[in-house]
Amino acid sequence: MDLIKVKEALEIVVNNAQNFGIEEVDFLNSCGRILKENIFADRDFPPFDRVSMDGIAISSEAFNNGQRKFNIEGIQAAGSAQLTLQNTSNCMEAMTGAVLPKNTDAVIQYELLTIENGTATINLDALKSFQNIHLKGTDKKQGDLLIKENTLISPAEIGVFATVGKSTVKVAKQPKVIIVSTGNELVEVGEIPADHQIRRSNVFTMVSLLEKLHIKADTLHILDDREVLLTKIESLLNNYDVLIFSGAVSKGKFDYIPGVLNELGVEKLFHEVKQRPGKPFWFGKKNHENMLETTVAERSRSIVFAFPGNPVSTFVNCIKYFNPWYYKSVGLNFENKQQAILSEDFYFKPELTYFLQVKLNQVEGKLMATPISGKGSGDLANLADADAFLELPDDRSNFTKGEVFPILNYRQINL
Amino acid sequence: MDLIKVKEALEIVVNNAQNFGIEEVDFLNSCGRILKENIFADRDFPPFDRVSMDGIAISSEAFNNGQRKFNIEGIQAAGSAQLTLQNTSNCMEAMTGAVLPKNTDAVIQYELLTIENGTATINLDALKSFQNIHLKGTDKKQGDLLIKENTLISPAEIGVFATVGKSTVKVAKQPKVIIVSTGNELVEVGEIPADHQIRRSNVFTMVSLLEKLHIKADTLHILDDREVLLTKIESLLNNYDVLIFSGAVSKGKFDYIPGVLNELGVEKLFHEVKQRPGKPFWFGKKNHENMLETTVAERSRSIVFAFPGNPVSTFVNCIKYFNPWYYKSVGLNFENKQQAILSEDFYFKPELTYFLQVKLNQVEGKLMATPISGKGSGDLANLADADAFLELPDDRSNFTKGEVFPILNYRQINL
Repeated sequence: MDLIKVKEALEIVVNNAQNFGIEEVDFLNSCGRILKENIFADRDFPPFDRVSMDGIAISSEAFNNGQRKFNIEGIQAAGSAQLTLQNTSNCMEAMTGAVLPKNTDAVIQYELLTIENGTATINLDALKSFQNIHLKGTDKKQGDLLIKENTLISPAEIGVFATVGKSTVKVAKQPKVIIVSTGNELVEVGEIPADHQIRRSNVFTMVSLLEKLHIKADTLHILDDREVLLTKIESLLNNYDVLIFSGAVSKGKFDYIPGVLNELGVEKLFHEVKQRPGKPFWFGKKNHENMLETTVAERSRSIVFAFPGNPVSTFVNCIKYFNPWYYKSVGLNFENKQQAILSEDFYFKPELTYFLQVKLNQVEGKLMATPISGKGSGDLANLADADAFLELPDDRSNFTKGEVFPILNYRQINL
Repeated sequence: MDLIKVKEALEIVVNNAQNFGIEEVDFLNSCGRILKENIFADRDFPPFDRVSMDGIAISSEAFNNGQRKFNIEGIQAAGSAQLTLQNTSNCMEAMTGAVLPKNTDAVIQYELLTIENGTATINLDALKSFQNIHLKGTDKKQGDLLIKENTLISPAEIGVFATVGKSTVKVAKQPKVIIVSTGNELVEVGEIPADHQIRRSNVFTMVSLLEKLHIKADTLHILDDREVLLTKIESLLNNYDVLIFSGAVSKGKFDYIPGVLNELGVEKLFHEVKQRPGKPFWFGKKNHENMLETTVAERSRSIVFAFPGNPVSTFVNCIKYFNPWYYKSVGLNFENKQQAILSEDFYFKPELTYFLQVKLNQVEGKLMATPISGKGSGDLANLADADAFLELPDDRSNFTKGEVFPILNYRQINL
């Protein structure tokens, strides 16, 4: 067998990652994208000595000299300019989030006070230094790096952008992707298939997988006609950064994709991987540098993922290969390190990496993977029964209960 | 202390989950939503005896009688109506995905054939029964349940919807949510704050958190003015299923929210939870049954989450309380069972559940949680440095390296 191993295939895919540049978007639309600038503190945080409990602000000197009763001189509200305590034997009511009044250096929370007739009595023996005061610049100094370039933006980052006034942010541009199905047996979702037909489904599964990466992919169906494929794919290569195919990459008489791609000058980087399902995966690239069309001047090359057409093959190949390619392309330093424990013995003879469909469940902090018995790579319905693929290595046939293997978990729930 | 414990607070919140009904959406827009119908197989899967390898289809009887050379009678392509092998001493080329030709019951893949001058010679000693044939109905029978109601829809389900022709699907309706900030110290993201002001950020963090649940929340800012709050919140209660507040729920002079909600007939279910950060959390509901306004006829009640205004408090409370409330409301049976291992000793004295900000990393299949030292609940920038909150129980002060605790992981990467 001259098939390439999964590890090598993945390396080739990831080594062909590509930078698609940078765009600026509204900060509220940036969640899930990759940040392409460093975010700095525009001022100290907190930006002023900040009251952190509701109560009274006093001069600690008065307290330390034994004074416990303080007349209330005024109220320092959050959002008001700093007031000044005129008489340091008095106090100022002060609210959480307010600026600490001038001439005060401690805040006593209401829980420790008795307030009667405009006088607060403090029921406390000793003060801590700067009690209940969040001092200016304690968290971050103006100019401090808050978020590094190449961070995957989450709601936490959205809050920081707002805080420092970044109403727009630079993010990695997304690749322009089209997902193409082929196969004369396919009809549309809204149609009633004849006995020998089935409905298109893989393109929609992949549209959804890419949506999770915030990529809006286009879709197209092309019939199994060599000439039509040549014309249409040539045009797609000129207009898309990434072409993803589903089907027509195996040994069948109408599996025109590898030949057509070759004829169109797409360089094959590998074809067929030592894995099941998804073995006939074809991967290649086309450099556009020497093309004359001005329309592609800015597109240096197109990448082609041609996945086999079986639903489970397409699905596992998309998350195993396209996702890491995408993460590398946009600059995210992410390696899927998730693992799970095989919950029963399993036997798989062929010398192929086996992506075993499993159901996951957490038992005392351990992630257990229970095999779902599929009927081969065409069994789409099993994808709905399972949660993940357990990746079993190709160098042996017996896998023992309790062993730990990498997983591709496609059902993670976001908090 | 008469504070409520975290566990009890969560129970009250979840017990006030509410069904918002069902809507029908395009199947391609349903990813991330909760399915509200059972999905059945509309036909057998595969719908016909399906060729699963490219090669030739033969009659096994001929093979078992010793025949190894077969003349090729024709080609059965995927997407073509079933052909008939006229002479069972011949064979038919047959492609993956095609209907098995009549009068054949085995498929020999090209890898095991020598084809010359229209004759295929089989290099194989024995056939398996129905070799390379995926028999009709092996995966699922017509009428079989494929996906159960109340499933969180993932790309795997999108593929099944397409396969069975569900171009629209019933999903749980989302609650209508508004997120309200208060506080005179807040200015807009695009503005330059004065020394005593800061920018609004919590509402945007929460908008992003809710976006992950596919909820598009409205937002509003109201100044700390009791009369204005009364008028505006009364109107919000009539128009939203859920009101989320950030700020003005503590003991400050301008913390009007609890009083205003009380005056508007919102029943307090609890106020103040034994936790840090996020202790002043106020939770309540308002039943609309007896109201006269016809506009609210269909809204049976409103739920109010009034979170404290510190960025980290708001953040942790939103994922700790709002998310489970939402999941229960839409019928998803999900409990966050994620845990991580504390990587160093930690001490926290107050008798409160402590949501410790931690950085996560996977070491040999174990999820390790390393504390990030924050400066209190106002320290938003730490959210960007951390990955999760480790939930340390309130009944002790010493937490030892190696102990396992629940986590709220807000940075999970989807495959």
